[in-house]
Amino acid sequence: MPRIIECVPNISEGRRPEVVEEAVAALKRAPGLRVLDVQSDKDHNRSVLTLAGDEAALRTGILDLFASTLARIDLRTHRGEHPRMGAVDVVPFIPIEGATMPDCVALAREVGEAVAERFGVPIFLYEEAATAPHRRHLEDIRRGQFEGLAEKMRDPQWAPDFGPAAPHPSAGASVVGARMPLIAYNINLGTSDLEVARRIARAIRFSSGGYRFVKAMGVMLQERNLAQVSINMTDFRKTPLFRVFETVKAEAARHGVPVVGSEIVGLVPADALIETADHFLRLERFDPSQVLERRIREAE
Amino acid sequence: MPRIIECVPNISEGRRPEVVEEAVAALKRAPGLRVLDVQSDKDHNRSVLTLAGDEAALRTGILDLFASTLARIDLRTHRGEHPRMGAVDVVPFIPIEGATMPDCVALAREVGEAVAERFGVPIFLYEEAATAPHRRHLEDIRRGQFEGLAEKMRDPQWAPDFGPAAPHPSAGASVVGARMPLIAYNINLGTSDLEVARRIARAIRFSSGGYRFVKAMGVMLQERNLAQVSINMTDFRKTPLFRVFETVKAEAARHGVPVVGSEIVGLVPADALIETADHFLRLERFDPSQVLERRIREAE
Repeated sequence: MPRIIECVPNISEGRRPEVVEEAVAALKRAPGLRVLDVQSDKDHNRSVLTLAGDEAALRTGILDLFASTLARIDLRTHRGEHPRMGAVDVVPFIPIEGATMPDCVALAREVGEAVAERFGVPIFLYEEAATAPHRRHLEDIRRGQFEGLAEKMRDPQWAPDFGPAAPHPSAGASVVGARMPLIAYNINLGTSDLEVARRIARAIRFSSGGYRFVKAMGVMLQERNLAQVSINMTDFRKTPLFRVFETVKAEAARHGVPVVGSEIVGLVPADALIETADHFLRLERFDPSQVLERRIREAE
Repeated sequence: MPRIIECVPNISEGRRPEVVEEAVAALKRAPGLRVLDVQSDKDHNRSVLTLAGDEAALRTGILDLFASTLARIDLRTHRGEHPRMGAVDVVPFIPIEGATMPDCVALAREVGEAVAERFGVPIFLYEEAATAPHRRHLEDIRRGQFEGLAEKMRDPQWAPDFGPAAPHPSAGASVVGARMPLIAYNINLGTSDLEVARRIARAIRFSSGGYRFVKAMGVMLQERNLAQVSINMTDFRKTPLFRVFETVKAEAARHGVPVVGSEIVGLVPADALIETADHFLRLERFDPSQVLERRIREAE
């Protein structure tokens, strides 16, 4: 089976389309690398690129991405609403098919080391690739942003995993690592009472005692006058979609409120939906290799 | 996106493994053709081969399959429980991804014509490729089997679509066509009362007033002492899995019987499960191209 790893680099450019296009063109030159999606945000002055390929394709592509963006992005003059500390700000590798989390951790270390050596950019490893608990979360590594980075890196706790002990003058530092796919999942309630959505969000999210791999908040959909539980699923294999849906439905019922629908924003791994079908159909002895398209890829 | 067509040829040999192995080896030599599954049945004296590829791969592979089996299978001495009329008995082409039903009908005609010309085997087109309503169903075409074929073909109603007006001496005739994927789907009931399963089967199957693309019967699972509704879904896009499951659940409840589980036998197209998840999660505006693995194939 061909190995599929997803990679979602975020670069600190969302206003000059020609710079983003150059970066995408550089990525597309890497043999076997697929560019699945490009989203630029002018307010954030940031672009999110979604890539897929095997290790060799991603290694080549990410090094080319650094080469392209370092020549064009200077954080000393960069302004935007989104926190950032690098020209290539963050590079997560995500196991999808035929590759494991340890494969992605190994790839993150290898690519991080190569970037540090070739471009002199300090690299911090994060999430599953982190080398200490305090360096696991992106928000902790990035706190202080580019402007506070030189000062922050004087603290031995914030020495980089690879590369020089001080920031790159124009490109700052980059965060590279491995994580599970994120699923952005929203559940719409048959009420205009935002407080109900907020209570349900508190019930299901990790930070207030809910499921381990759920982040959630209540928001209003002004156009539809509906309250929504807006959810980030950070590990759908351990906290599955169907369990969160069923829990939200039960919590909503306690307020006499129906679930009117739900939505997946952006991409979702097939397995997250297949295991949902498995659950609701009460399948016995179902094996994902019974999925025709997967069997075809296994035969490749 | 690469075109994926499934093809499930049935050959009249299930007792001599070397003959089946030769046929599989011939198929594997076709560039780009994947052999997903091989099931031989000694009682039926028949093997079911599951293949996938694009038009070119299947065209090459099926012609090679005929060459391999015609040299080794002689229906004049073939015995088995399963009805058959050809050495290569039936060849359905099935659209999976990036290919439509009309594409599969065109492929069936093209392959059928090439087989008739190269091997002198009469070809009957069936299902979506049928050229008259009375020739649509396999059981009607095959009625009388190999032994009755010469007589049957004297009737102008049973002239072949391609090839000679009389059977091939050793290989009979072959049925080639296009159809939707079949899903073999069983639902297990929390009762040992076979009559409940039989009633539910009657309620859901086309032949007695149920869903258009459902065949069903009640059977006993002796080992578990459970009654089962055994179902063939012949077009999951028009009669979806979740609707059949929900209807069986409701009919069972009317008898005070729970659904204890269900099972998919063999392969299932990813879309059948994805639309099941879509249904139960009440997704709004979900587009299958949001499935990550599909987006990757679209980018190829």
